[in-house]
Order: sequence, then structure tokens, then C-alpha cells
Amino acid sequence: MTSSTEEAKSELNAASQIIDGKAIAARIRQDIAQQVAALAEKKPGLAVILVGSRPDSQTYVNMKKKACESAGIVSFGFDFDETVTQEVLLETVQKLNQDDRVHGILVQLPLPSHLDQDTILKSVHPDKDVDGLHPTNVAALQMYSGHFLEAPFSIPCTPLGCCVLLEQSAVPLRGAHCVVLGRSQLVGWPMARLLLAQDATVTVVHSKTRNIEDMVRQADVVVAAVGRAQMVKGDWLKPGAVVIDVGINSVDTPGGKKPYKLVGDVDYDSAKAVASKITPVPGGVGPMTIAMLLRNTLASFQRMQKQT
Amino acid sequence: MTSSTEEAKSELNAASQIIDGKAIAARIRQDIAQQVAALAEKKPGLAVILVGSRPDSQTYVNMKKKACESAGIVSFGFDFDETVTQEVLLETVQKLNQDDRVHGILVQLPLPSHLDQDTILKSVHPDKDVDGLHPTNVAALQMYSGHFLEAPFSIPCTPLGCCVLLEQSAVPLRGAHCVVLGRSQLVGWPMARLLLAQDATVTVVHSKTRNIEDMVRQADVVVAAVGRAQMVKGDWLKPGAVVIDVGINSVDTPGGKKPYKLVGDVDYDSAKAVASKITPVPGGVGPMTIAMLLRNTLASFQRMQKQT
Repeated sequence: MTSSTEEAKSELNAASQIIDGKAIAARIRQDIAQQVAALAEKKPGLAVILVGSRPDSQTYVNMKKKACESAGIVSFGFDFDETVTQEVLLETVQKLNQDDRVHGILVQLPLPSHLDQDTILKSVHPDKDVDGLHPTNVAALQMYSGHFLEAPFSIPCTPLGCCVLLEQSAVPLRGAHCVVLGRSQLVGWPMARLLLAQDATVTVVHSKTRNIEDMVRQADVVVAAVGRAQMVKGDWLKPGAVVIDVGINSVDTPGGKKPYKLVGDVDYDSAKAVASKITPVPGGVGPMTIAMLLRNTLASFQRMQKQT
Repeated sequence: MTSSTEEAKSELNAASQIIDGKAIAARIRQDIAQQVAALAEKKPGLAVILVGSRPDSQTYVNMKKKACESAGIVSFGFDFDETVTQEVLLETVQKLNQDDRVHGILVQLPLPSHLDQDTILKSVHPDKDVDGLHPTNVAALQMYSGHFLEAPFSIPCTPLGCCVLLEQSAVPLRGAHCVVLGRSQLVGWPMARLLLAQDATVTVVHSKTRNIEDMVRQADVVVAAVGRAQMVKGDWLKPGAVVIDVGINSVDTPGGKKPYKLVGDVDYDSAKAVASKITPVPGGVGPMTIAMLLRNTLASFQRMQKQT
């Protein structure tokens, strides 16, 4: 590293800003709660379908239900045994599709392997698909170029939350080079599309990418969504880059107070010294995902009220 | 440019290969004709809808109909006045959706501005949407990661043709850095997805990209689909890069034999001196688009026969 970039680094260092996803999400949830409180008798409702007893899925589902309650959104829980049949699940979804108390239907993923995840996700009515995973909504996102909060369909919660964080942090995207690590249907690929729609230049890198560090080093904005603990190091970053860390990885901490800790896909300490803005883990993207789920449920409700 | 890259350039120069889209397309069309000839009585049928009298659209439609005939595919032409109503067009599509002689329906774009292009494209039954523009097929492509010729749905003809050219030219894509210029629904964006599905690292650049030359200069494979005559110069390319030129631009040739000539988005003469493989214009991607239309029509026919 040359001395001039060292200088740039230390200058930026001074200004390095933590993107406080927890605080931003809290403000959004408060705003949603106020909007819901101001509604007439009828309130938005979210149905949450959980299959099996994975502890992480149970934790997420509980967090989602609690978040609904605190925003005044009615939550309906449907918990099934690991062994539930495809038919029973599809019947449940069909009933919820027709239930006018329900404006959002969430199927907690992953499903056990004997179930056909695609078929089940497709069975959710597109208007109630608050996760944005139904083909109708997937296609709508590919063809949409407006503002992400004005889309007349649901956009997957995690990439939507990342866009809100970038906007709230006043990160200019037009013409910026954004490198997205990961190409999943849930995060990486929709994120790439959302950045492109905001006129960013977008590169998608993944496990088969050669010289991944060199690619990341060019980025004005890095979005890491690969699920590999602390993979992106500070010296992979261009000084002043903005870092959005989607990863939530559990790593063992032998001898620590707790037996494990949660870390992102970015090596936070070394990255913080180089980035201009960075999301922590936990407290960055994670809280935004839940805030966006409430937001998508309210938006679904509002669209359905207009229709009737 | 350093002398070592000059050397590399002249070495590669010697080996620079023209990707002969015309010849590759001819072989594919011959193969399709043989498959169609071997069919029992029932043959694949393609309906082509043309609105108005744009000379370029008329030329394309005529080429498509002739290509059908020469392959033994039945073509049904539906030519409408510039002033046709949306209702009449939608009725026509509905009839064709139900007509079991028709396995592909193509609406020649662009449509006059009083027509709602989205609604008309959505009205085509997904199984007969040989252009791959129906939301069902758009979503299917985003979620598909298999081989492009094995997809159980239609992929837009031009990017599909580009994939075939790359495969037939033995261009390795896994881990290769592919830079796509342009982000259209018809070419750029589906091309990016198709390259990603082949494990390439993909960058999408466009009119808002800063330092576009620097981005292109990193590419192992360049796909140019911006519609700007001869924009990409030879010195924008990494020596040995593979160049796929999707552009078909008409430029005036004052004092020439003809009043205009067709050129690509790439400055062919300067690019040919640097690239390892390159498609000419005309005779590169253009003929492949039509070959892929026939191929998609035959594939639709085959899928429908299986269903019945």
C-alpha cells in the first residue's frame, strides 16, 4: 500500500461511520406502529408457517411474531411437525390465500427436504407473498426500475433492507461500482437488480470467481452475502468503501463467556479501519430484515384495501 | 501500452478468430429442419404479429417467416394497421393461445405507443411465449441454473444465441470475468443471468457507469448490447478478450456505394486486432437470433406434444 493511500485511509478512518441498522429499524418499526394505530378497525395480518423444530427457524419465527405484535400487526402462527405432508401445507396456504384477515403469508425457510419448496412458495397468492419469492414478484422485480419503496409488489426483505440502509446513510449509488458477494435468490441476485435499478454499476462475485479480492478492492460499495464467517478482510477494501454485511454466522468461542458468537461475512475490525461506512453484525442488516417484513405486510394490506 | 502487451497482442492477433454466427446459425437451422422433417404429420407452428409499417420491423418479420418456411415450421402472419386497438390485439392473442396448430406466438416489438406492450406480452400463454418475455418465463430464467439449452421454458432468443456462440467457440466461462454492456430486458439483463448461471463473474455496465473503459478492459468476455455504433474500441479490450457484439446500428456512408452500412456496438477493425475471438456485424449474433427463434418454437412444440 502506498503512503498516499495510507493517508487517505487514516483520514477516512477518522470519519468511519457505523451504519446503525438497529436504530434505523427501530424508527421504521415505530413509524409502522403509528400508521397501524391510525387505521380503522381492520388491521394488517401476517400468517407465519413454520415446519419442524430447527432452533434458528424457531428463533426467527418468534422474533417476527413479536415484531408484529409490537407494531399492532396481527400474527397467525401455523406450526407443523417435521413430517407434515405437502398436501396439508398446500391446503393451509390455500385457506390463508382466501382469508381476508391475512395480508401476508410467510413460509419460514428452509423446509424439510421431503417438501417441494418451489411448489409451496408458488402456492402463496402473489399479493400476499411478503417475502417476494413468488415467480410473479421475482419477475416484477426484474422488470422494475422505480424506487424500491414505491414498487407495487413485494421485494425480498433482506435486500430491501440493505437499500434502505444505503439510502438512509446517503450513499450515492448512481454510477458507483457495487460488488455483491453471493448470488442467492433471497439476497445476492435481487440485490444486484436493486442496485442496477439505482444506476449503479454492478458486479456479482461468488465461489467460482477468480481473484475475488481484486474484484472487491474496486468496489465503492460492497454487499457481502455469502454465509462465510469473516471472509472479507480490511485489506480487500478500497479505502472509503461502504460495506453492507448481510452474513450472520455463528462461530465457536472456546474459553469465552458464551460458547459461540455471531459474526458477519466481513472481518469487522479490519474492515472498519478502511471503510467509510459499515454495518455491524449483529445490529446491522438483521434488524432491517424484520422491519421490512412488517413494512411489506403493511404495504400489502394497503394495496388490498385499495382494491376493495 | 508496454512492449510485453504489444507482443502478446501481436501473438494473439495471429490467432484472432472470427466467430462465424452465420455458419453456426446455418448448421443449427439445418439440424432443426431435419428434426421437423422427421416429425409425423403435425408440424410446429409460429404466429407472427406485426403492427404498423416500420421498415425494420417488416424486414425482421419477413426474415422470421422465411426462416420458418425453410425449416418446415408453419408460419401464420397477422399484420395490423398502426391504428389497431388493444382489444383487437388481445383477442387475436387469445385465439392463438387456444389454437393447437400454433406453438409459438411472437409479437414484433416495438409496438406503437398507444398500445400497452406489457399487457400484450403478458397475454401470450407462457408455453407459447417463444421470445421469453412473459413474466412466468422471466422469473423462470432468474431461478434457473441448468444448461441454457435444457431449460424447460423459453429464454430470449438473442442472449440464448450469444450463449450458443460462446459454447460453440469453446470459450470457458467458469470463473471468467464477463462484462455485459447494456441492461435491457431483451438482452443485457437476461445475458447477465445466463453468464452467472454458467459460473462466470458478471459485471453489468451502462450509460451511468463511470470509467466504462476501465471496466471493459478487465473483461475476459465482453458482450456489447447498448445500441451505440462502434462505441467499444480496440484499446478498451484486454488482449485476448472474447467479444460478442449484439449491436446492429445503421450508419450513413456519404459517398459510399450504399447510403448506409450496418455496424455493431464494437469498433470491429480495432477490436479484431486485440481480441482472441470476435463476432462480426453483420453475420455474428444477428443470424443466431433467428436460429434461436426456430429452436424455441421447436422446443415449445416438443414440450406441448409431451403434455398431450
